[in-house]
Amino acid sequence: MIYMASSANSSRGIAAIVGVGPKLGRSIARKFAHHGYTVAILARDLERLWRVAEEIAREEKAQVFAIRMDCSDSKSVREAFEGVHSVGFVEVLVYNAYQPQCWKRTCFQDVGIDSFHKSLAVSSIGAFHCAQHVLTGMMERGRGTILFTGCFASLHGIAGFSDLCCGKFALRALSQCLAREFQPQGVHVVHVIIDGLVGPPTRRGESMEEEEGKNEIVGGEGSMSMDPDAVAQTYWHLHIQHRTAWTHEIDLRSSTSSFF
Amino acid sequence: MIYMASSANSSRGIAAIVGVGPKLGRSIARKFAHHGYTVAILARDLERLWRVAEEIAREEKAQVFAIRMDCSDSKSVREAFEGVHSVGFVEVLVYNAYQPQCWKRTCFQDVGIDSFHKSLAVSSIGAFHCAQHVLTGMMERGRGTILFTGCFASLHGIAGFSDLCCGKFALRALSQCLAREFQPQGVHVVHVIIDGLVGPPTRRGESMEEEEGKNEIVGGEGSMSMDPDAVAQTYWHLHIQHRTAWTHEIDLRSSTSSFF
Amino acid sequence: MIYMASSANSSRGIAAIVGVGPKLGRSIARKFAHHGYTVAILARDLERLWRVAEEIAREEKAQVFAIRMDCSDSKSVREAFEGVHSVGFVEVLVYNAYQPQCWKRTCFQDVGIDSFHKSLAVSSIGAFHCAQHVLTGMMERGRGTILFTGCFASLHGIAGFSDLCCGKFALRALSQCLAREFQPQGVHVVHVIIDGLVGPPTRRGESMEEEEGKNEIVGGEGSMSMDPDAVAQTYWHLHIQHRTAWTHEIDLRSSTSSFF
Amino acid sequence: MIYMASSANSSRGIAAIVGVGPKLGRSIARKFAHHGYTVAILARDLERLWRVAEEIAREEKAQVFAIRMDCSDSKSVREAFEGVHSVGFVEVLVYNAYQPQCWKRTCFQDVGIDSFHKSLAVSSIGAFHCAQHVLTGMMERGRGTILFTGCFASLHGIAGFSDLCCGKFALRALSQCLAREFQPQGVHVVHVIIDGLVGPPTRRGESMEEEEGKNEIVGGEGSMSMDPDAVAQTYWHLHIQHRTAWTHEIDLRSSTSSFF
Repeated sequence: MIYMASSANSSRGIAAIVGVGPKLGRSIARKFAHHGYTVAILARDLERLWRVAEEIAREEKAQVFAIRMDCSDSKSVREAFEGVHSVGFVEVLVYNAYQPQCWKRTCFQDVGIDSFHKSLAVSSIGAFHCAQHVLTGMMERGRGTILFTGCFASLHGIAGFSDLCCGKFALRALSQCLAREFQPQGVHVVHVIIDGLVGPPTRRGESMEEEEGKNEIVGGEGSMSMDPDAVAQTYWHLHIQHRTAWTHEIDLRSSTSSFF
Repeated sequence: MIYMASSANSSRGIAAIVGVGPKLGRSIARKFAHHGYTVAILARDLERLWRVAEEIAREEKAQVFAIRMDCSDSKSVREAFEGVHSVGFVEVLVYNAYQPQCWKRTCFQDVGIDSFHKSLAVSSIGAFHCAQHVLTGMMERGRGTILFTGCFASLHGIAGFSDLCCGKFALRALSQCLAREFQPQGVHVVHVIIDGLVGPPTRRGESMEEEEGKNEIVGGEGSMSMDPDAVAQTYWHLHIQHRTAWTHEIDLRSSTSSFF
Repeated sequence: MIYMASSANSSRGIAAIVGVGPKLGRSIARKFAHHGYTVAILARDLERLWRVAEEIAREEKAQVFAIRMDCSDSKSVREAFEGVHSVGFVEVLVYNAYQPQCWKRTCFQDVGIDSFHKSLAVSSIGAFHCAQHVLTGMMERGRGTILFTGCFASLHGIAGFSDLCCGKFALRALSQCLAREFQPQGVHVVHVIIDGLVGPPTRRGESMEEEEGKNEIVGGEGSMSMDPDAVAQTYWHLHIQHRTAWTHEIDLRSSTSSFF
Repeated sequence: MIYMASSANSSRGIAAIVGVGPKLGRSIARKFAHHGYTVAILARDLERLWRVAEEIAREEKAQVFAIRMDCSDSKSVREAFEGVHSVGFVEVLVYNAYQPQCWKRTCFQDVGIDSFHKSLAVSSIGAFHCAQHVLTGMMERGRGTILFTGCFASLHGIAGFSDLCCGKFALRALSQCLAREFQPQGVHVVHVIIDGLVGPPTRRGESMEEEEGKNEIVGGEGSMSMDPDAVAQTYWHLHIQHRTAWTHEIDLRSSTSSFF
């Protein structure tokens, strides 16, 4: 089911953002819309998607499609991308889906096989499907960007989080395999490790302009949570990197966080 | 279905070896049998299992059970471990299963979802099940060893091997999670990275005695493939490490291999 | 010895670029000058420095200081930073020095102790000194950015390059230590892994504007070497990251390179 | 200056242990002596060395040489190895030196350049020298083992420990470079990461026999510190690995430690 939130004509490709809640996914979608992309946002909760789509379409005067998709269901993924492709060519895929239930500590003996399956399905099998759906078009045009969202659990096993860690390790593996196979053909594949909690935006959009120095931006900062607009800024930078200087892996965290 | 290959009485726990073909699994099973363990060997090909069980029982005068198990099928895993537990307590689990189809290069666009699922099922979901089946008993006794077999693809994404790499990265995650959760409770969890091809044994058992110096052992060596008995020697060493000096991760490769 | 190449007044801090040759250092210096920073460029070859300073001052209408410095000599480093501090506060330090002799394969038995010492001196001891000279000021103001340039040899030992690898591993260690100690105090520390050869710029400056999409930028690209202006673009992005979303480590390589 | 603690004739090569205090170095030296090696122990404190040499010679009925050496002084290293080579061929080098002052947290701004230099000198330049002194002989014979001792700081930068981390990262680099260059020529190079404090031995030697199961060994264990005899057991195992199954990197820690 596709809901189009605006109809300005676009000469650019589509940025498909998978996993859009009120924080990071929304900020990334808005960032690409701001730079002229037609945006498709995909997630399970269509009502929330619709609100986000409408807001971005209005504020950025952009074309935004909201498409219901369950990452853990291959049929749902296929149908959703049929919808996306009926609109245009996917130039950017951001895979940002996650399984909320994984984010709480569970004794290993109490992890149900369904939860384990579901985590792998959302973190890695969903990413596998989405990548297959967009890569053919990207290779035909010799360009495209795929951004996978990882976290601390992508790099380190954590007691009580085996379902999360297995899924996130697998996603990182997928990202490395695709980078090595497709970068020579012009598709940029990036694994972004977000090491911390993303909170609500802390600033007005205008202070994010890249030409501003860091000084102005940081004033009054105190909290630990990561600003989703700031994270989205780096996603955008990764997308526009010149092809002789592509990043494959990058970490992001708050200045105040301790890290390993 | 359980086939018992010998019936000498044993006062030791059981070493359960999952994934036993003619090379590494067989050598590991034999090593533990040699040191007095009752051994359960589990794999899909019962006929081959049976031959291995018989050979080990005869040569090591040990009790060996051959149990058919499909790692990718949770029901099969549950039934197999019911069989193992009817014999005794699993003190050692070696998870050595792999999916032969993953070991050839396939363009990402040609990887079927079934193959991807199967690889995750064998590499990580099977390991998840087996670990759940043995950990309760290990924690009750405050001791046990779990050895997971990884490979180069556990550490590095490889173009054309996304199914293998995703499964193996996930297995490494599982291994780290379990080590952090269960080592303080006395269960030693190890991830062994076998970086190369394991071939047929190149030496007679007697030259493997640990009290012998390296000089004698290496004489006349030239080939690239790894000796399964030599690899099994290190699995055994890891099992007998003192609990103030436990290894979590170790790599193994031939002296002649180049490595990254 | 300080040579000032221009005297436009500046209200911004200083960007000190250590290790400036005709490629990456020059592009980074120019990038920061373009965004309004007073720039100090430091290296051993004063004549070349002077040409670079003059060119940047003229083209970017910026204040550029050229200061002779030998990274491997602590007295030279101290005097050079006295010169820099006489001009203003160092807000940005880019440590980009390298030891050209390290970049050729040498049998380990033929590596002289002088070469080994020199590599450690340039890669890590020089970085240690420069960081000590700028951190006091950064902490007083609660802000600053330190960017260290690493390479493939920062992550992997390479046969025949022990001097290079030891120095680069140590530099990475320094970078991690400083990030953990100083980021909570407002100093952003980044380790940039440049995995490939940086060549001469391949494009005109105007096509680097960040608001341009990737499509336009990549047209006609074919070569393997990395564009120094493109790399500098990412250094700049790292500097302006919002402090709730700081990167500590990032890699950069050409789309056509194979990588590990 | 060489002190020989015993004069039983030996047909084996020499095991040279660099960095021998009352804990790990002593246990490793004793282990190799126990297996018939002539042992040379090298450190700064000759009086302590002499006591250790005498004890090992007496208890293991082995030939033990105590040689004064300052790892941070290349002339001292050269003279010490001239002494070692006058006795025989070095078949095993264990590099276990460390700089005690590095093991306390120091604000980066307070780390003196002398302390930083000294740490690099002990951790990596000393290792460089020792490796050069033994590799020629090892290559002539096509065999040898070099074991480098690392720690948590070999893998992770730590706030307040820049001198320790830089030295230990560099040592790990050296280890990887040497493994890649010399393993195909028969020299086994291993980096052992000891992630925790090594305490006094907690057990009697007899319970360490490798044929004993884990059960007996672990009885009554409660403390966190690592047993040096248990660690030495793994050093010995690494030395006797078959050359088709060599380890390059291994970690060791107490079961009760939390780890990253």
